[in-house]
Amino acid sequence: MTVFVHERGLCESQNVGDGTRVWAFAHVLPGAQIGADCNICDHVFVENDVLVGDRVTIKSGVQLWDGVRLADDVFVGPNVTFTNDPFPRSKAYPASFPRTHVGQGASLGANATILPGLSIGRDAMVGAGAVVTKDVPPNAIVVGNPARIVGYVDAQAPRPATAGAAPGGEPSASHVAGVSLIRMTRVDDLRGSLVAADFDPDLPFLPRRFFTVFGVPSADVRGAHAHRVCEQLLVCVQGSVRAVVDDGEHLQEFVLDRPDFGLHVRPLIWGTQYRYSSDAVLLVLASHPYDAGDYIRDYDEFLRAVGAAPEGGAPGAP
Amino acid sequence: MTVFVHERGLCESQNVGDGTRVWAFAHVLPGAQIGADCNICDHVFVENDVLVGDRVTIKSGVQLWDGVRLADDVFVGPNVTFTNDPFPRSKAYPASFPRTHVGQGASLGANATILPGLSIGRDAMVGAGAVVTKDVPPNAIVVGNPARIVGYVDAQAPRPATAGAAPGGEPSASHVAGVSLIRMTRVDDLRGSLVAADFDPDLPFLPRRFFTVFGVPSADVRGAHAHRVCEQLLVCVQGSVRAVVDDGEHLQEFVLDRPDFGLHVRPLIWGTQYRYSSDAVLLVLASHPYDAGDYIRDYDEFLRAVGAAPEGGAPGAP
Amino acid sequence: MTVFVHERGLCESQNVGDGTRVWAFAHVLPGAQIGADCNICDHVFVENDVLVGDRVTIKSGVQLWDGVRLADDVFVGPNVTFTNDPFPRSKAYPASFPRTHVGQGASLGANATILPGLSIGRDAMVGAGAVVTKDVPPNAIVVGNPARIVGYVDAQAPRPATAGAAPGGEPSASHVAGVSLIRMTRVDDLRGSLVAADFDPDLPFLPRRFFTVFGVPSADVRGAHAHRVCEQLLVCVQGSVRAVVDDGEHLQEFVLDRPDFGLHVRPLIWGTQYRYSSDAVLLVLASHPYDAGDYIRDYDEFLRAVGAAPEGGAPGAP
Amino acid sequence: MTVFVHERGLCESQNVGDGTRVWAFAHVLPGAQIGADCNICDHVFVENDVLVGDRVTIKSGVQLWDGVRLADDVFVGPNVTFTNDPFPRSKAYPASFPRTHVGQGASLGANATILPGLSIGRDAMVGAGAVVTKDVPPNAIVVGNPARIVGYVDAQAPRPATAGAAPGGEPSASHVAGVSLIRMTRVDDLRGSLVAADFDPDLPFLPRRFFTVFGVPSADVRGAHAHRVCEQLLVCVQGSVRAVVDDGEHLQEFVLDRPDFGLHVRPLIWGTQYRYSSDAVLLVLASHPYDAGDYIRDYDEFLRAVGAAPEGGAPGAP
Amino acid sequence: MTVFVHERGLCESQNVGDGTRVWAFAHVLPGAQIGADCNICDHVFVENDVLVGDRVTIKSGVQLWDGVRLADDVFVGPNVTFTNDPFPRSKAYPASFPRTHVGQGASLGANATILPGLSIGRDAMVGAGAVVTKDVPPNAIVVGNPARIVGYVDAQAPRPATAGAAPGGEPSASHVAGVSLIRMTRVDDLRGSLVAADFDPDLPFLPRRFFTVFGVPSADVRGAHAHRVCEQLLVCVQGSVRAVVDDGEHLQEFVLDRPDFGLHVRPLIWGTQYRYSSDAVLLVLASHPYDAGDYIRDYDEFLRAVGAAPEGGAPGAP
Amino acid sequence: MTVFVHERGLCESQNVGDGTRVWAFAHVLPGAQIGADCNICDHVFVENDVLVGDRVTIKSGVQLWDGVRLADDVFVGPNVTFTNDPFPRSKAYPASFPRTHVGQGASLGANATILPGLSIGRDAMVGAGAVVTKDVPPNAIVVGNPARIVGYVDAQAPRPATAGAAPGGEPSASHVAGVSLIRMTRVDDLRGSLVAADFDPDLPFLPRRFFTVFGVPSADVRGAHAHRVCEQLLVCVQGSVRAVVDDGEHLQEFVLDRPDFGLHVRPLIWGTQYRYSSDAVLLVLASHPYDAGDYIRDYDEFLRAVGAAPEGGAPGAP
Repeated sequence: MTVFVHERGLCESQNVGDGTRVWAFAHVLPGAQIGADCNICDHVFVENDVLVGDRVTIKSGVQLWDGVRLADDVFVGPNVTFTNDPFPRSKAYPASFPRTHVGQGASLGANATILPGLSIGRDAMVGAGAVVTKDVPPNAIVVGNPARIVGYVDAQAPRPATAGAAPGGEPSASHVAGVSLIRMTRVDDLRGSLVAADFDPDLPFLPRRFFTVFGVPSADVRGAHAHRVCEQLLVCVQGSVRAVVDDGEHLQEFVLDRPDFGLHVRPLIWGTQYRYSSDAVLLVLASHPYDAGDYIRDYDEFLRAVGAAPEGGAPGAP
Repeated sequence: MTVFVHERGLCESQNVGDGTRVWAFAHVLPGAQIGADCNICDHVFVENDVLVGDRVTIKSGVQLWDGVRLADDVFVGPNVTFTNDPFPRSKAYPASFPRTHVGQGASLGANATILPGLSIGRDAMVGAGAVVTKDVPPNAIVVGNPARIVGYVDAQAPRPATAGAAPGGEPSASHVAGVSLIRMTRVDDLRGSLVAADFDPDLPFLPRRFFTVFGVPSADVRGAHAHRVCEQLLVCVQGSVRAVVDDGEHLQEFVLDRPDFGLHVRPLIWGTQYRYSSDAVLLVLASHPYDAGDYIRDYDEFLRAVGAAPEGGAPGAP
Repeated sequence: MTVFVHERGLCESQNVGDGTRVWAFAHVLPGAQIGADCNICDHVFVENDVLVGDRVTIKSGVQLWDGVRLADDVFVGPNVTFTNDPFPRSKAYPASFPRTHVGQGASLGANATILPGLSIGRDAMVGAGAVVTKDVPPNAIVVGNPARIVGYVDAQAPRPATAGAAPGGEPSASHVAGVSLIRMTRVDDLRGSLVAADFDPDLPFLPRRFFTVFGVPSADVRGAHAHRVCEQLLVCVQGSVRAVVDDGEHLQEFVLDRPDFGLHVRPLIWGTQYRYSSDAVLLVLASHPYDAGDYIRDYDEFLRAVGAAPEGGAPGAP
Repeated sequence: MTVFVHERGLCESQNVGDGTRVWAFAHVLPGAQIGADCNICDHVFVENDVLVGDRVTIKSGVQLWDGVRLADDVFVGPNVTFTNDPFPRSKAYPASFPRTHVGQGASLGANATILPGLSIGRDAMVGAGAVVTKDVPPNAIVVGNPARIVGYVDAQAPRPATAGAAPGGEPSASHVAGVSLIRMTRVDDLRGSLVAADFDPDLPFLPRRFFTVFGVPSADVRGAHAHRVCEQLLVCVQGSVRAVVDDGEHLQEFVLDRPDFGLHVRPLIWGTQYRYSSDAVLLVLASHPYDAGDYIRDYDEFLRAVGAAPEGGAPGAP
Repeated sequence: MTVFVHERGLCESQNVGDGTRVWAFAHVLPGAQIGADCNICDHVFVENDVLVGDRVTIKSGVQLWDGVRLADDVFVGPNVTFTNDPFPRSKAYPASFPRTHVGQGASLGANATILPGLSIGRDAMVGAGAVVTKDVPPNAIVVGNPARIVGYVDAQAPRPATAGAAPGGEPSASHVAGVSLIRMTRVDDLRGSLVAADFDPDLPFLPRRFFTVFGVPSADVRGAHAHRVCEQLLVCVQGSVRAVVDDGEHLQEFVLDRPDFGLHVRPLIWGTQYRYSSDAVLLVLASHPYDAGDYIRDYDEFLRAVGAAPEGGAPGAP
Repeated sequence: MTVFVHERGLCESQNVGDGTRVWAFAHVLPGAQIGADCNICDHVFVENDVLVGDRVTIKSGVQLWDGVRLADDVFVGPNVTFTNDPFPRSKAYPASFPRTHVGQGASLGANATILPGLSIGRDAMVGAGAVVTKDVPPNAIVVGNPARIVGYVDAQAPRPATAGAAPGGEPSASHVAGVSLIRMTRVDDLRGSLVAADFDPDLPFLPRRFFTVFGVPSADVRGAHAHRVCEQLLVCVQGSVRAVVDDGEHLQEFVLDRPDFGLHVRPLIWGTQYRYSSDAVLLVLASHPYDAGDYIRDYDEFLRAVGAAPEGGAPGAP
């Protein structure tokens, strides 16, 4: 096994993968398990009950405390600070340390602070200086103190298609298979406004269920799941909300802010809604009654369902 | 024909019904047609192109100008002021005078002002001192300058059933046949709120159309019609709105202000919505696609459809 | 008895006081009782169950319906419109007509509308065009549709002493015996503000009761009574309120809008508070526990208690 | 002189013009002076110190009290109520009655109330039921209780040219000679917005004075004058305001609600600004320093200055 | 003396207590004084003018600069950053460094930043990532950038007793001896609301002083002291405020948000008020006139006064 | 060359200036270039592509990554965290690293985070714990996450002269040559407010250009340049804005928050406007038409123009 340890570094673990480097003034305790091709920079400290995947970068000034779990390809920026005790007092130790999970490919920005017991989703990106106090969904971008979701990775690359274009302007079409924007009839006059749609032929299915979502704090996410069979029509009848749709290959983000546009989402699309305005009311019409078994709530399971196998296998896989 | 005219009164018309009295300092011009059992009080003036039904009371200080039409049983309070020229200038006369219609049984409060060309609906009640600038629907109560609808006759008698009772408190049942309140599942937590309903079995029909109504000025009325076949579920997903339902015999008013209550309205119910709060969003799910022929927009026609024949026949009926 | 009736006027009552004049096209029914030195102008109509005091002026276009009671010295402006049926329908009569009382010396402005069953207090002034829907307190000035209190007669003549003068500026002293403004210590800094007072020696009595008044609609009046023994300190700790104090001879109005000024009101002062701002919180510290017998709630009784005998005797007095 | 008086009418004045008619139950006192071709309808009362011009219409139920002055061509709707005592008390009379002036061609809507001592400008229009508490400028339209200006006669006929058209849309040109809209450069980006103009060549004069107007209650009018020499550029840099310009022949109304449009007003244009939004800030750049003599503040004087001689001559003209 | 120093650590001070450990890459300068049983983790740096008590934990990546004072049992999380120059410039040094005091048992969360010259109170808890810019009171919990008080340690454990429970619901009783909630009479009707209390028997003492507190920024604390003799009644007459009471053994937090509940606080209770809503007005009635000598403003002095001797003696105590 | 390296420090670069010290556990890579008299504290890491000027202080826990450039006299507080990859992913490297420039004399507070590719201006001061996401102008003080400008160095020392002093109170005079506050006539009455000024003699020049600035996000800066010839009058006609003026020697800050005060700025004054309130509208009248060549946008160029040579020479100067 070729592990490089700088002469001023200190690696006490025997469980370090091939090609991994440990630099000056870094210190790895005996119990730590570290994968291959990792980079442990100067002034890093790694405690015992720590698991690190392959190809992980840990920049200077970082400590990995007992309970930290980093999947493959994680980037940990300089001075990122992990924690493992929600109410620390000197000489008082919890029975067990809460675990921190950082998903495959995630990136933790410089000087970010991660509170104990959280999960950072696959490919998520934590902004520099963020103080993360809640779980971060897959692909989400979070910044600030406390950290808030401000976007989704890749979804932002093409400019968000807004449902709220000026009347007459067609919102840009969907780039995600299985998702389309449907425009309904809208009548505005001095007596107020009315939006109407016949399900046949305007709308793509007969609803058997509806629900409304409202009062969502702007920092929270509602949704974040896929359906196996059910299809949905999302209409933001008040305020605005951002809807991210993901078919496993492409993401796209829609700003829903007009009551006369509906977002039709077919099955096997991972959907997330976030950045609800304070007055947002989201109406969802669904093609099927409620069925808990129809929900896919785990992103990796979703990727398998659509045939986009996760790149990193399960630990221990051959 | 026994018409009583006070010795200081002046009745030049021959077309006055039996039992009608004309009091001191009142003056009826020759062309006026006045029904039976009317009371024309002191200081009233009636011009020529005027039709007055039976059992009408006209209190002192009122003038009925050319173009005024009063149905049976109308009450006109003291100093009520009619008009027949929207932009009066001295010695400038419109080609024809706009007509003012006051429906059967309506009551115009003391010193009210009625702008030209308006219709006051059957049994409507105009408050004392009101300045009426728009049509008044049947049964509506209006007050103020300009006049606004503040209620509906009879609907107010039983206290309005509010959908927005405290959680756990059951709103009072409907007294109007064909109307019921349906409670849906509501889940509130720190992430916001969600209301959900399966159409089967929670809701009474499968929707084939939905529409949302919003941005309604608080003084305006939306609705005011009945359906022959279509049934509807009304859910106020934001803000509040008052819904008056009327089966031709009973009226009832519901305050819709909770997203987890729906008002199920079967066919042949006259429905009116008013007092929209500024942020109100009313969701309507309908059992049928849009069909103009399904709408009954005339209240008298509605009364005939439900077998509640209007008490006053058409003019000229035998 | 020297009653003047114009040759085109019509007075059927025998119960009209000395010196009263009835002008052209006016009509007084037989049952009406009218005092001395009144002026019944052209086009006035007076029904039977009507009592009118002495020295009353009734301008043209006015009707006095059954149930109207006018005390001495009342002024009724042109086209003022009384009512006596809250829900009038043609040919439907209430069992008895609600009474309208207009107090001594009150003035009803031109074209005002008075809803049924109300009392207009002594010396009150109803503005032209007002639509009066609630009782009007003694001395109050009301305008608008619906009518709101905007001031008090005489209280306005000296400019209101505002408690909220610029810091350093002394509010003008009280002109009403038994009333004084007390300034308390106020400290403002970046941490907020604090007002403090020691009851001895700063404040004039030791409190044995306190109460707070809040949430008062701006159109409403709270107070309007005097105490026989109890004294009070009024402090508006939030928002603003107007306090009128009246010793039977002089009125004065104070704008209370600073938490560091208290209005000390000794016994036998008629106090009224009105024009509460929407956020007003009025703190009252009282020198005695609650005692219903200590309240004087009738203004005439108050005038007797302070020795300011009402000018108009009771009806039937010699 | 051919004056028609109905047999039940009563005209005691000898000072009534040719062709004027006095109808039933109307009463004109001896001192009144009434012009030619007037129409005095049933139940009107005219006191002594009253001047009425030619071609005036006075509908039923109106009283003209001492002090009322009506110019030629005035229309007085039914039950319009004049007043001549600001604080009426029975049997208490002011030393002299305040005068009410109604300008040539003005129209007073049905049941309006006019407070004492006011002037209603030439061609102004008072809405039905309005309670007029302040002077009404020439051409203004007022409604409500209290009455507010809601528009200007004729100015409204062509739809108001709004400066606030959608970016790219050119506001309609001016129909009033001497007035033009000037568009300035506007740059909006994420850092905010900037509007810029060079006076040469973009703007029509070099300013020697500027002023800003703000905090105007929405019911108030600022302006209402013409300049003899000075020209002005009006820019609404915040909020919105309506500007009426009048060259003596045509009126036009502009909604100024964009900081990148300026209204250039040359001399001898009568300008009025009204309906200031609560946040409106109007910037005026003027071509000359302040000179009181440059202002024309009387509308009739303005009409003479532009050679549009008022149609009605001065009283006493041959 | 048994001090453990890792072979890669560097401890130049002779003034380190028994049982203290200094780990790899840590560096303690000669002048530092460190107590017993401390843990100085990897990559810590300790300057000369530093005092550290017993049983203190200093996690990795922390520097203790000249002027830092840590009492016994303090916890300093990883990458916590102290400062000792309010306006640092390279090569420019203040005459003396401001001192930072961290009280006994306090906990500084991971990656927190502490500005110079501050005191962190006993048992206070600074959240991870917080930037502390003001003194932190004893027991307070602070988070955010800048850090705000969000609660008090232990006070939160039992759910806060809210005075604002639904009408009818009794707020939970006090767990702190000497503190009780008193309910007063409240009357709500359409005219507004009134709360009243007689001091005898409703209230526990006759007030000799009152003060009102308002305009407190939500991030600020008012109070934080105890009285030796004076007792108080706290009533939040507008808005809401949180009151923490502490008898030296137990803490309890009350949300005061109803004008009809008063918090009666007897002598020798440490009281703190915080989280004032922007409209909060707190009325305090006190049993005694103001006496500066009655205030205990130091928490340790308070603990001694109630016989709860602080666990850690003064430095240098035998 | 006398470079001090602690025995536990590691300096691999040969390019370190005279008098510079490298302390324990610090690590400088071979490619780094470091000036004279610097202080590289414990636990610092310096990568290869790094340039550091003279007299720079780098406190513990800091890493200087490839691309970082620090000018002379910079202070880098403890645990300050630099970055050089806007979207870091493990094992994915940008083609080149964005550069971070920190200007002469700037100070980076403890634990601040600096996002990649930014410039921190000369003498700017970054607060402890700040997360810097945008360029920081010269002299600016920034704090928070994300960092906002809260003031300017030195400008704050004399208390800001506010234009919005109480009426009658004269704002303090300008300490910067070439800048003066001009007071204009202001008239406030019930009809609103008006501010007026004649350019001659009240105002110092005849304007040939005007512009308005509005809608500026409060965190943004507008201005930050000097003119060679043009002079300007700044009037904040709505809201408030802070204007910093700088003649190369002295800075002064004015709070412009009154429409009746104008700030007259002569040529060769560096002017910056910031902290725009959300409703701010800044009117600028300029003495010359727009001319791009008249602008000086580089602060060092400005200092040379006013003869205040920057203290630090260009790199490579002898």
